[in-house]
Amino acid sequence: MKIYSKTHLPLGFKANGISAGIKKSGKPDLGLIFSEVKCRAAAVFTTNAFMAAPVRVSKDLLRRNKFFQGVIVNSGNANCFTGQSGLKNAWRMVEATSKMLDLKAKNIFVASTGIIGRQLPIEKILGALPRLVRGLSASGIDKFSQSIQTTDKFKKEISVKAYIKGKEITLCGVCKGAGMIFPHLATMLCFILTDLNIEKNALEKALRIAVADSFNSISIDGCQSTNDTVLILANGQAANRILTGKDRDYKKFLSMLKFVCLNLAKTIVKDGEGATKIIRIDVHHAKSKEEAKRVGFLIANSNLFKTAIYGEDPNWGRVVQAVGVSGLKIKERDLKINFSALDKKEVRLKVSLGRGNKSATVYTSDLTPAYIKINSQYN
Amino acid sequence: MKIYSKTHLPLGFKANGISAGIKKSGKPDLGLIFSEVKCRAAAVFTTNAFMAAPVRVSKDLLRRNKFFQGVIVNSGNANCFTGQSGLKNAWRMVEATSKMLDLKAKNIFVASTGIIGRQLPIEKILGALPRLVRGLSASGIDKFSQSIQTTDKFKKEISVKAYIKGKEITLCGVCKGAGMIFPHLATMLCFILTDLNIEKNALEKALRIAVADSFNSISIDGCQSTNDTVLILANGQAANRILTGKDRDYKKFLSMLKFVCLNLAKTIVKDGEGATKIIRIDVHHAKSKEEAKRVGFLIANSNLFKTAIYGEDPNWGRVVQAVGVSGLKIKERDLKINFSALDKKEVRLKVSLGRGNKSATVYTSDLTPAYIKINSQYN
Repeated sequence: MKIYSKTHLPLGFKANGISAGIKKSGKPDLGLIFSEVKCRAAAVFTTNAFMAAPVRVSKDLLRRNKFFQGVIVNSGNANCFTGQSGLKNAWRMVEATSKMLDLKAKNIFVASTGIIGRQLPIEKILGALPRLVRGLSASGIDKFSQSIQTTDKFKKEISVKAYIKGKEITLCGVCKGAGMIFPHLATMLCFILTDLNIEKNALEKALRIAVADSFNSISIDGCQSTNDTVLILANGQAANRILTGKDRDYKKFLSMLKFVCLNLAKTIVKDGEGATKIIRIDVHHAKSKEEAKRVGFLIANSNLFKTAIYGEDPNWGRVVQAVGVSGLKIKERDLKINFSALDKKEVRLKVSLGRGNKSATVYTSDLTPAYIKINSQYN
Repeated sequence: MKIYSKTHLPLGFKANGISAGIKKSGKPDLGLIFSEVKCRAAAVFTTNAFMAAPVRVSKDLLRRNKFFQGVIVNSGNANCFTGQSGLKNAWRMVEATSKMLDLKAKNIFVASTGIIGRQLPIEKILGALPRLVRGLSASGIDKFSQSIQTTDKFKKEISVKAYIKGKEITLCGVCKGAGMIFPHLATMLCFILTDLNIEKNALEKALRIAVADSFNSISIDGCQSTNDTVLILANGQAANRILTGKDRDYKKFLSMLKFVCLNLAKTIVKDGEGATKIIRIDVHHAKSKEEAKRVGFLIANSNLFKTAIYGEDPNWGRVVQAVGVSGLKIKERDLKINFSALDKKEVRLKVSLGRGNKSATVYTSDLTPAYIKINSQYN
């Protein structure tokens, strides 16, 4: 596997991002990814009970349709807690974009991020569509990436390539951070594109596995947003014979996808609000992977632990306390806690539970005065 | 029920607090409460898997013995994660204090708060015992209260009186805050004393109920310490006919106890690390009280919510997000969110779930830059 030095769209994909006037700042706020040919798709959505209208619509589309050709995304407004009007607006985005692209089927996904509880300025969005579509280009991924950002401090993109079943295939991932910082701002969005030819089931399974070990293994403030979406589109333009879950190269693809997801997830942590450090927490010798992950999250979500890391103190008492909350039976002498040097940008905590042979890794950031400032003085 | 203007020990109780040299600062760090006659007792302890040695010992005593005569408490060292030596030291505190008080049985409880993972300076404690016992006095509750404090900014005491079964009885509560701020510092400790004559079962039940609605309904940082203890001693010196759970006056006693516990729990929140506001969260129209409390805690433990309150912004999007994490099926239009004026010291959030007719209240504090400072720059 090789990493492209510059973000690179796979064969057959185009992208664009423009300012449609949704954000008051005038910054880019409307983006589109389009595949010239039909794609297979898989997605993972938020489990927050109040999922936003675009999430409902995209889930619906994924259930109904077999093939897709892209995704339209706006930032600046989450279209969440917007009732029937919000749902109607999300559908209008899908329909109008499909029509503008001359597609027979409504097979464009939709995603939104931004303020909760205000109606989308749908006319602005519809009015900007012709310009958005006109500007689609095979080198437009950067513009798209910018258009989905909210409070991100830097772009989050990566592209890799490798040979699968004799053909060179490209995997390109773009995401925006989990920042929930402006009043009612939300969401982590991730879009992964590939020209691989792959069976739907195999694609779904791979995404589920990769997300579990990446996006679902990070915690910035323990909050899950109403709009979280991870979407993968595979258009088959690399012209390989179709990849199935039983193929030898499936593992190769899975490790590529894991790499892309983990890389993006870590950039989200790095860009966590006010974060100065990324903290890797390895939990070993658990009875199950789930148990290891649960303990990892108890530590990762402990404000006391996160502030201690900010203060560069290997405060193992706070780790003990967080592990103890799990209620797991662990003997004092079996619990091993190990810190790496804490004066680095990336720090590592190893915790061994002495209960079994399963492990899990979770990532978080430190808790800093800047977090409070960002999250309290946003008006 | 009347509130004493000054903290007041019930009949037959004495207390003292001194400096034994456990704290480097030289501040008071060893306290004793003693009843001249035998008491019935009830207690609630931490559920953290790594419960400290004194918690293990006190649990053991409560199981084994029927009557008790007091409690010895040290601050500055939590005697937690201290293995067999720690356990031995906690027992030595019990034994030596019982002996010094000329008691036949080992019926003095023990509690500790402070640094985790260091052995108690047991010789200092034993050496200070004669002085501690000599100084016991019916007006010594203030000294005791000081001796159990760690990072508390103010004392947390209250005494109330009322007539139960024709006799005036007094209920006196003292506690220390949940601050976990010094490296490996821990714990909420609460001691409640009464001269009421009450059956053991009735006492246990009342404490369980009162704690559920007070100490177990507050959250400062969502962390439960290794040493948390709430203990009640009832010595019967008011000479009322014994109170049972079936008596008409039982409800009166229960409401007194609830009042004392909630009052103390709220002072803990008020003294939360760096807190500028105490936040009362009322969750209404839930299917069960447990469900209401769970939603309340999801909100109370949300850093995004707590920082918004610090910033005095009625950010209902963050409430929506926290409620949504519960996974409960709630229709958007059924969720009602209501903020009181946020520029006050005590603010109130009302959330209505539209699912049933049960309610619960939880308390928390705002999350401020001072919290980060206290918890990262303690060295």
